[in-house]
Amino acid sequence: MTHTPTPAGRGVVLARAALHASISDPALDAISFLNEVMDRYPQAISFAPGAPYAGLFDDIDPARYIARYSEYLATVKGRTPAQIRKQLYQYGPSKGVINELLAAALRRDEGMQVAPQALVVTVGCQEALLLVLRALCASEDDLLAVVNPCFAGIAGAASVLGVGMVPIDETESADGGASLDWAQLERACLRARADGKRIRALYVAPDFSNPSGTVLDLAARQRLLALAEREDFLLLEDNAYGFTAAPGCTLPTLKALDGHQRVIYFGTCAKICMPGVRVGFVVADQAVRDQHGQLRLLADELASLKSMVTVNTSPLCQAIVGGMLLEHGGSLAALSKDKGALYRRNLTLLLAALERHVGVNGDPAHGVHWNVPAGGFFVRMRLPVAADAALLDQCASRYGVLWTPMSYFHLNDGGNRQLRLSCSYLTPEQIDEGARRLAAFLHGELVRRKPAMLRPAIGSLLSPVEP
Amino acid sequence: MTHTPTPAGRGVVLARAALHASISDPALDAISFLNEVMDRYPQAISFAPGAPYAGLFDDIDPARYIARYSEYLATVKGRTPAQIRKQLYQYGPSKGVINELLAAALRRDEGMQVAPQALVVTVGCQEALLLVLRALCASEDDLLAVVNPCFAGIAGAASVLGVGMVPIDETESADGGASLDWAQLERACLRARADGKRIRALYVAPDFSNPSGTVLDLAARQRLLALAEREDFLLLEDNAYGFTAAPGCTLPTLKALDGHQRVIYFGTCAKICMPGVRVGFVVADQAVRDQHGQLRLLADELASLKSMVTVNTSPLCQAIVGGMLLEHGGSLAALSKDKGALYRRNLTLLLAALERHVGVNGDPAHGVHWNVPAGGFFVRMRLPVAADAALLDQCASRYGVLWTPMSYFHLNDGGNRQLRLSCSYLTPEQIDEGARRLAAFLHGELVRRKPAMLRPAIGSLLSPVEP
Repeated sequence: MTHTPTPAGRGVVLARAALHASISDPALDAISFLNEVMDRYPQAISFAPGAPYAGLFDDIDPARYIARYSEYLATVKGRTPAQIRKQLYQYGPSKGVINELLAAALRRDEGMQVAPQALVVTVGCQEALLLVLRALCASEDDLLAVVNPCFAGIAGAASVLGVGMVPIDETESADGGASLDWAQLERACLRARADGKRIRALYVAPDFSNPSGTVLDLAARQRLLALAEREDFLLLEDNAYGFTAAPGCTLPTLKALDGHQRVIYFGTCAKICMPGVRVGFVVADQAVRDQHGQLRLLADELASLKSMVTVNTSPLCQAIVGGMLLEHGGSLAALSKDKGALYRRNLTLLLAALERHVGVNGDPAHGVHWNVPAGGFFVRMRLPVAADAALLDQCASRYGVLWTPMSYFHLNDGGNRQLRLSCSYLTPEQIDEGARRLAAFLHGELVRRKPAMLRPAIGSLLSPVEP
Repeated sequence: MTHTPTPAGRGVVLARAALHASISDPALDAISFLNEVMDRYPQAISFAPGAPYAGLFDDIDPARYIARYSEYLATVKGRTPAQIRKQLYQYGPSKGVINELLAAALRRDEGMQVAPQALVVTVGCQEALLLVLRALCASEDDLLAVVNPCFAGIAGAASVLGVGMVPIDETESADGGASLDWAQLERACLRARADGKRIRALYVAPDFSNPSGTVLDLAARQRLLALAEREDFLLLEDNAYGFTAAPGCTLPTLKALDGHQRVIYFGTCAKICMPGVRVGFVVADQAVRDQHGQLRLLADELASLKSMVTVNTSPLCQAIVGGMLLEHGGSLAALSKDKGALYRRNLTLLLAALERHVGVNGDPAHGVHWNVPAGGFFVRMRLPVAADAALLDQCASRYGVLWTPMSYFHLNDGGNRQLRLSCSYLTPEQIDEGARRLAAFLHGELVRRKPAMLRPAIGSLLSPVEP
């Protein structure tokens, strides 16, 4: 939407510097810039958005899902038509209404023993992140550790609440596996204590993380759980992309391995149902003891907070998710099976197209290297030059292809020579053509910067593509 | 939902005192208590919930509204079926997608000259309140003045963000009209300045406010606008109940009178469409100047914040609201006309039933007095005794009728001898029977406390009703 600034002088003019600091967060400017570039080059092929594939929307039928869920309420729950209408259209509990269905699915699909009461259904995963940060971070002494680089949403939620973040760098092993900089994490805990502060939680996406596409192996998961127990922090596990793993290739979630309730688990229905419902959820089965010694679930406290943020999640949207789940036997895995396969296909196509058009991965002739995830939406590419806004603009205007600078996802000054490629949104043809344009761009820019690195075999690809 | 506390000792136990203070806000306990009472006495007639009348849900048809809105996108906006699916099911702009329809309705219905770009569509009005407070209150020196008593949602949003509130008492004139304690407001501005702080905004619901049902007259509205201009604060105008005014009896909104963009206007679709969509909106046409002198709309900043809170409001839910609006010629007034009439009928019935069962309003014989609003959902009743939790429990258990202690809505220790009666949720029969039970309760309790006040004529009503 274009901005229509108020005619100056007609009324009040607020100073942006006097508004909350989160509004001036550079991360927001980065996202605005990306959106502007996409607006300016609408014909460019964009590896930027991590949004679901639009072809998946062809068969969506909200009325059918609502009817399916209503039938469930009538036959399984014995509700009258008036009660069903009330559940769909009236205010509802802040905790949600499809908690039982979700808890059953998590038990069945993930081996997660979760009571429905330990779940809160939220307006997307984003609201769940905000609620959990708000609950855990009572003062500026309560810090959030974040695996770096990270999903922009967690940094955004922390920024809105003024929660201090401590980046913990992701590390990459020779075989492409990912781990954390454990020493950095332990130092961060020590330093926080020395400063009279404490790390309340660590945000981590162990399965095909956004933005780097990496997976924490089982040993790293176990080490993380042990460290959380020893250093007394919680783990905020974001599992938006686990459903894209090949069958039989999934690792247990942190929450499934969690013997001490150290893990708060975040799920989203945006990818496995659709973003348009804005439904996510959080599992928070930790006990909270009040001053009288009484115990409640952390989920109860989150629901209280939610009543002050969005009151409740649209029960109509929850009914749509519920109906989709019921159409797949109540299984999130069954619901997401075909979608997971589609995204794996896209990823395979992208990786193959990169090899085909750019050249052999890591070949010194072009100096470009990318990781090879087995799932997720994202590939991380390392360039021999800075992948910054200027380069992106050049790439969009001259070669008609877009990507996201990886530095946008870094909490420190890392990721400068990296970019993120997302393949979720594109058709196979776009992926191939996009990789061709990207190769033309990479070789074209490398030609001009480092002529010796150009491989003659791909000279035919170097002509810039009109967007 | 019942709590299932974690078995102690199995895992981590968090101290509630170490969680954010908003979780332990007494206002939350008050709401929990109210919900518990309602759960304990499900057969009681409840004048507590301010929720819409369930009978209005009988004819709701989400599929039809989505189809109507989709047809509009196709015929008026020229969208293809694939583009329409994308708008409904994919991520969308944080600012919203039905902004044009809403802005046109506000122009037509309220005489409000608002550009679509100055609107943000939010997850209910609650999220809009949170976003505006977050934007305006950058530090603990930025205070929010609130007309007292007030809607619990504004206090909740302030609590979540740790924003300091300054209550400004509502005053009542002899004729039942409402105004503010102007001296208190001016003193609050002075004191804030003296303390190096400032009042950033005043929250006010000029039309049939929740909880007191009062209306600010035109003179008070104009005085408020002048004061906001002089003292340099903004007015947060919440207009959830204006649609219940009798035709021809509406006063212009603050926003319609606003010559200097002093007013941020909040609307909700919960009452005029249905709560189940969780759609509200905010009009924020103020200019914001950044450090380079560039102007943006405050709505743009709110949309940025929203991207970190809930990303965007469900476009499906927006489509439902859009379709309902289009079915009524794009007019919020036409959409809400019948509903407004229904609530006026309920209010008239309640006021008549109170006279019939309790006795003449303000009669010293019973010592009970209530205001007589011309619209809205609420009546405020003053008792000669404290209307507290104990009295409510007694009333529920012995007389089968519920209400809300007015003290729950007061930011200071006011409202102790008052209760709020809401008539939106009840059928005519329930209103009459509820008033009968309430009269029995009032007279019954007054009998025991002040036997001399009992009027013999209503002795037949005094037998407690089994809930």
